[in-house]
Amino acid sequence: MRLYDCETAPSPRRTRMFIAEKGAPVEIVAVDLAGGEHLKPDFRAINPRCTVPVLQLDDGSTIVENVGIARYLEEVFPDPPLLGVTPYEKALVLEWNTRVEHDGFMAVQEAFRNKARGLAGRALTGPRNYEQIPALIERGTERTKDFLAMLDDHLADREFICGERYSFADITATVAVDFCKWIKVPVSDDAANLRRWHEAMQARPSYTV
Amino acid sequence: MRLYDCETAPSPRRTRMFIAEKGAPVEIVAVDLAGGEHLKPDFRAINPRCTVPVLQLDDGSTIVENVGIARYLEEVFPDPPLLGVTPYEKALVLEWNTRVEHDGFMAVQEAFRNKARGLAGRALTGPRNYEQIPALIERGTERTKDFLAMLDDHLADREFICGERYSFADITATVAVDFCKWIKVPVSDDAANLRRWHEAMQARPSYTV
Repeated sequence: MRLYDCETAPSPRRTRMFIAEKGAPVEIVAVDLAGGEHLKPDFRAINPRCTVPVLQLDDGSTIVENVGIARYLEEVFPDPPLLGVTPYEKALVLEWNTRVEHDGFMAVQEAFRNKARGLAGRALTGPRNYEQIPALIERGTERTKDFLAMLDDHLADREFICGERYSFADITATVAVDFCKWIKVPVSDDAANLRRWHEAMQARPSYTV
Repeated sequence: MRLYDCETAPSPRRTRMFIAEKGAPVEIVAVDLAGGEHLKPDFRAINPRCTVPVLQLDDGSTIVENVGIARYLEEVFPDPPLLGVTPYEKALVLEWNTRVEHDGFMAVQEAFRNKARGLAGRALTGPRNYEQIPALIERGTERTKDFLAMLDDHLADREFICGERYSFADITATVAVDFCKWIKVPVSDDAANLRRWHEAMQARPSYTV
């Protein structure tokens, strides 16, 4: 099993953290996003969407979204469980993974990709080029602030994103919160719940993989 | 168990179809999105994100994303399986559900919500108001065309989105393809694979719920 990865990108970091928490034996293959390797024919043959992470199984078949990779790894490496144990927990982990992707990741991405000079003409990930739209910088920034405030509220009476057990939702949220720094939206000093949770996440060995 | 639903909206239709395929006993509660019921205090108390679907369990707890609701229902009503059977299938169903949400639903939504006069000031779903951005109408339309072309290619050698078995990914894709009509992007006459698949989806009893 091999993971097509990029050490500096937020999205594949989620899979790396998941692998670290599982202790799963996965070979890492670096893809040079800064050099445009993901847009070249060799990588398009692996993933026509031109994104990482990609998990490639030993038979050559691929899985190209974090949530799909997580589901596969949970099946083949069930311990420790990271996608919930009870039916309701299993639902919440996927719910919160999606919520953080939509309300967090996409918000930051909107602000970041429409502003960064190096991403001119690349406002969206994927095989096709889209021009930057300046109005999205402010919108993405506002959405990011709302996201952090929502997460702080949510964590007021929960140790982890989905309650009492660390899960894939914590991984997704950790990477999303760190991604906010890319657009200089800090975790507010007042966000005591979010700070407490984020410190606990930073203390886990998976944080630095 | 009750589902907060809106008959005319694409997103909760996915959960209705899932329930129909399972034959699950779920009470339906209509939420009047056109009348703004989702933005009023009573509904915000149920779901602060102001979106449907919401599945409310008998103990009052809620699940507010399609993928989370699907995971819960799959656990409590396992037959027929709609989230895959083998580890790889389970991964693919979640992968494709996300791909169709990102590349299909969000593309159509981008074009639709930034154009519709009735959605002025409501360019994004959720508790907060965002102004429409005209440049997103064209971008969303282009992304939608790419989405349909990608799906047609993908279905060239597959009966269903994830291969040989009907799944939640087919439900998500069916609703996404029908949603394209809202922005007048039709399935091209040349898209023979997509047409064949879409006709098969329309023949299922779950299509009209």
